Amino acid sequence: MKQYNRKYSIMSKKVVVIYSGGMDSYTVLHKAIEEGLTPYALTFDYGQRHVKEVQVAEQVCKELGVHHKVIDITSINQIIGGSSLTDSSIEVAQGDYEESNMLNTVVPNRNMILLSLAIGYAVSLKADQVYYGAHSGDHDIYPDCRPVFLEKMNDVAAVANYEKTEIHAPYLQTDKIGILKDGIRMGLDYAKTWTCYNGREQACGQCGSCVERLQAFEKNGITDPITYEA
Amino acid sequence: MKQYNRKYSIMSKKVVVIYSGGMDSYTVLHKAIEEGLTPYALTFDYGQRHVKEVQVAEQVCKELGVHHKVIDITSINQIIGGSSLTDSSIEVAQGDYEESNMLNTVVPNRNMILLSLAIGYAVSLKADQVYYGAHSGDHDIYPDCRPVFLEKMNDVAAVANYEKTEIHAPYLQTDKIGILKDGIRMGLDYAKTWTCYNGREQACGQCGSCVERLQAFEKNGITDPITYEA
Repeated sequence: MKQYNRKYSIMSKKVVVIYSGGMDSYTVLHKAIEEGLTPYALTFDYGQRHVKEVQVAEQVCKELGVHHKVIDITSINQIIGGSSLTDSSIEVAQGDYEESNMLNTVVPNRNMILLSLAIGYAVSLKADQVYYGAHSGDHDIYPDCRPVFLEKMNDVAAVANYEKTEIHAPYLQTDKIGILKDGIRMGLDYAKTWTCYNGREQACGQCGSCVERLQAFEKNGITDPITYEA
Repeated sequence: MKQYNRKYSIMSKKVVVIYSGGMDSYTVLHKAIEEGLTPYALTFDYGQRHVKEVQVAEQVCKELGVHHKVIDITSINQIIGGSSLTDSSIEVAQGDYEESNMLNTVVPNRNMILLSLAIGYAVSLKADQVYYGAHSGDHDIYPDCRPVFLEKMNDVAAVANYEKTEIHAPYLQTDKIGILKDGIRMGLDYAKTWTCYNGREQACGQCGSCVERLQAFEKNGITDPITYEA
């Protein structure tokens, strides 16, 4: 990682990267670094069960020497309920993302909320770009990961402030398999990511998120470096 | 107010109203009630100096029997700084809104953030509308109070979730004088509103917000019922 550190220590363009600690945004973070940008990583604690993501994100940013902010927005759960990711009374669905039961992992308006905060941060920093890890594998289940959502958000981001901000999703037309492929090309260590929706010590290997991750490794013909339960 | 209480006790359409406790959103709240909607008032505590607004909002909703949520989003000040409304090291500007020194009351991306949260709340409630108090008097100074911003936000709100949400600003083409005129027509008591940007016991009468309020009362030929310092 040393070469990245050198790259963004020189005067370069700032970019806000929404970085959850998961493998998609981990790859996006490194993509921004590879492009010679200075990332300002932004992690949201919205009461997700998988809080281990946040810890992993902190560790990675520390190692890379990347600016990092963790913002506690758990208070929004008072108005935005009904997702198994934040409501402990709802069981996290198991199996493929394609299954209709994955609908209970949809957090109402999540990406508009997170992106609007990231844009506010970008305006404060005088950065003109926000990177986030939407990808085609999420298009079916999450409306706010679709290209049309990104396009419309960019139309708003152009007029909401005196400073025009652009949202960029480098993997919008790629799936998780392609993201991992690009990360492998960059020499990334995916032991430094957390994907599981359940917040236990080890990844469950059963939830939709784990299943999708394991498939991506399998399709790339490599072994996932993290340890799974059982 | 009794007739309003009766109106929304019957089965009627829900609407989320962004209600700060100020005179604009106070009027919007009553507009929604007059239209026969059931308002879900939403107040954001973002560390504004004028926290009295929040107390006033609570009292009004209690009296009206309106559903009310106050959401603490002060943590966002860790990423969104530079406004005199939230940063106590910056002095609140005095005088007309037209003055360039009112620029320091601009909170980066404020309305996109607040509206995205309100939309999330609407989706959770199965309400399909959000009302907010943007008006023409703010167009010059706040980019996120302009018609083009609202138009673009509605384009996003239509695609961000499975449920389409519409944002409505009933006074978008009206100024504060017109809002007050409509409120007087509805028989509203503006003693139950708070406008001053400074958070002292009484309104200062000097800040841009007070000056604009006082002008609105003067132009309507009536006396502001609240008490001012000196």
